[in-house]
Amino acid sequence: MLVTLLTDFGLSDVYVGVMKGTIAQINPQIQTIDLTHQIPPQDIATARFQLMNAYPYFPAETIHVAVVDPGVGSQRRSIAVQLKSGYVVAPDNGLISGIVNDAIAAVELNNPKYWRSQNPSATFHGRDIFAPVAAHLASGISLKELGTTIDLSSIVRLPIPDVIETASGLQGVIQAIDHFGNLITNISGERVRDQVWTIQIDKAIYPGRTTYADAESGEVVGLIGSHGWVELAINRGNAQNELKLKVGNTIAVTDSRSL
Amino acid sequence: MLVTLLTDFGLSDVYVGVMKGTIAQINPQIQTIDLTHQIPPQDIATARFQLMNAYPYFPAETIHVAVVDPGVGSQRRSIAVQLKSGYVVAPDNGLISGIVNDAIAAVELNNPKYWRSQNPSATFHGRDIFAPVAAHLASGISLKELGTTIDLSSIVRLPIPDVIETASGLQGVIQAIDHFGNLITNISGERVRDQVWTIQIDKAIYPGRTTYADAESGEVVGLIGSHGWVELAINRGNAQNELKLKVGNTIAVTDSRSL
Amino acid sequence: MLVTLLTDFGLSDVYVGVMKGTIAQINPQIQTIDLTHQIPPQDIATARFQLMNAYPYFPAETIHVAVVDPGVGSQRRSIAVQLKSGYVVAPDNGLISGIVNDAIAAVELNNPKYWRSQNPSATFHGRDIFAPVAAHLASGISLKELGTTIDLSSIVRLPIPDVIETASGLQGVIQAIDHFGNLITNISGERVRDQVWTIQIDKAIYPGRTTYADAESGEVVGLIGSHGWVELAINRGNAQNELKLKVGNTIAVTDSRSL
Repeated sequence: MLVTLLTDFGLSDVYVGVMKGTIAQINPQIQTIDLTHQIPPQDIATARFQLMNAYPYFPAETIHVAVVDPGVGSQRRSIAVQLKSGYVVAPDNGLISGIVNDAIAAVELNNPKYWRSQNPSATFHGRDIFAPVAAHLASGISLKELGTTIDLSSIVRLPIPDVIETASGLQGVIQAIDHFGNLITNISGERVRDQVWTIQIDKAIYPGRTTYADAESGEVVGLIGSHGWVELAINRGNAQNELKLKVGNTIAVTDSRSL
Repeated sequence: MLVTLLTDFGLSDVYVGVMKGTIAQINPQIQTIDLTHQIPPQDIATARFQLMNAYPYFPAETIHVAVVDPGVGSQRRSIAVQLKSGYVVAPDNGLISGIVNDAIAAVELNNPKYWRSQNPSATFHGRDIFAPVAAHLASGISLKELGTTIDLSSIVRLPIPDVIETASGLQGVIQAIDHFGNLITNISGERVRDQVWTIQIDKAIYPGRTTYADAESGEVVGLIGSHGWVELAINRGNAQNELKLKVGNTIAVTDSRSL
Repeated sequence: MLVTLLTDFGLSDVYVGVMKGTIAQINPQIQTIDLTHQIPPQDIATARFQLMNAYPYFPAETIHVAVVDPGVGSQRRSIAVQLKSGYVVAPDNGLISGIVNDAIAAVELNNPKYWRSQNPSATFHGRDIFAPVAAHLASGISLKELGTTIDLSSIVRLPIPDVIETASGLQGVIQAIDHFGNLITNISGERVRDQVWTIQIDKAIYPGRTTYADAESGEVVGLIGSHGWVELAINRGNAQNELKLKVGNTIAVTDSRSL
């Protein structure tokens, strides 16, 4: 019985600890694992990216609780979704859109029997709805007891820029920047694997490599990151600090087939 | 057997991990939950606030270890306190004063049998006294074996400003600021619930609302926060950054009964 | 079955959570404890220091996973080492050199049977090699099944400056600075214990004390820190902020025997 937690609550307050206490009050046997609590406040796009990258690495019955919730207290739905591998419990605001293709069934969380109280706080559904629902789900309550079944097609999706095929290869965007300053694109590594390729930003062109170790110290290179996306990195350095790029900036990949 | 940890140790050193290792050496079955380790160094008032807010959300037998301890190595007492729900183990410096009204019995931790060693470090009682004592308490050692019984009235209390009733309502202070920049007052939400109310700071008056969603994006509003206190917040924004207020600043709440 | 984790991955991405998920996929009974994930990126020396300080405080069978790995994807070896107390799994780049004197046996991790896949990512051996190997080791797989035995003398050691005996006492360096701004030297506290001593940096001389409480508020003092090293600290203050010193700066300790 494993529950993961992903939020924008930070670690300076006790909000995350309180969610874990709430889960332990319902079932002290549940183990929790933190995915991250440092999503920038209310940044659903980053939450989508991080949840998508963590999802494949957990046991089949894991329940993921994801709470980045600028609409808390509004009419946005709270949902629980059964996936090919485990479940996710979250506000229906697009943050699960990176894994929603794995959805099998979904409910709106409108049965207060499985909430912390009949009158949840207007501002902390993580404690009052999402954590208790996850704890009950981990304890054997079935999905359909948690609320009304909803159509999978009704789940909110975040629009992610498409990768465009160009005359010389592919055009994409930076979709995330990690702790090491690696600039992670929305281009799947599968599209450059086993090729000679380069990555271009503005006028600068950098070589595609297999590992950091193939690069000189300080050299800017393209890599297929561990998450499977093409990224721009600096061996023993920080590409974000060096290149001053942002999420959303356009990049181009040129593959050997087009040369 | 659940032990929570709240400290000002931060997460860049191994101090917190070492406390958990010390607990596991005594009893590897004990589960630990982090409340927070980012209390500003030696800030007992913030520790008091955070511990008070977490306490109600844990199972009845939980043992809370709280270590913000500028007086470590001095004559300040180390104590363990039985509460209506669980126990707290901490230096006797006021940090438990938000929950001390729930105290049932207390001891001074002067039995070195349950310490990590007879000669504890002069600077890290978290590792050498508080964590081992909590591990033994979680493992079935009774409170009175841990040391000499002390009078509950002798436990150090932090003086918290009183809420004052005025002609037009209530006057209080900002007692904490959270990760989202919400300005949390010392006025209980119970005192404004089901009323029309406003919150005033200096000359500015803001409306009391039920949820963030009742406010325009960017609007400053009063809310009853999830912890039960009146707070000042900005929908999809950061009130601290916008209003430049600090812990200790005076605020006034005007309720409909006085209008 | 306890596995600790020490990395430079930070807490804003899901990399640490993914390592824990990978462990849970192999054996959900394993408990994990975070030592720290805030080692400065690629700072092997700090990782060495922190791992060395945590190691003595864990149960005898604990498996420590330490991943600060600027050479990931290069020819640097991955190793698992049996210690007097437990095991460590890490890249062979010097980060275990603070505990390598406790080594009993070691292997190079070249048996892909215990990796996450036959084709590990070129950039995230934490997920694909170190975490799975630790999970298998915690689950009863023996050290020698993990790869080829290596000679203990071949394990990479980080050169640490020696403490020099001088006419007036000892000369050492600052080897680490902690969250509280304490400046931790490479001089063992054993060498000043039970003596009258002073600590000198440039022209300034500070008294050696037993506890923070022996110092005035704001006074700079020498102490024997909880980790056993001589450190320079300020009672209720931050010595790093005040003294503007760095790791590597020289300090001298004068003991009473030389006066």
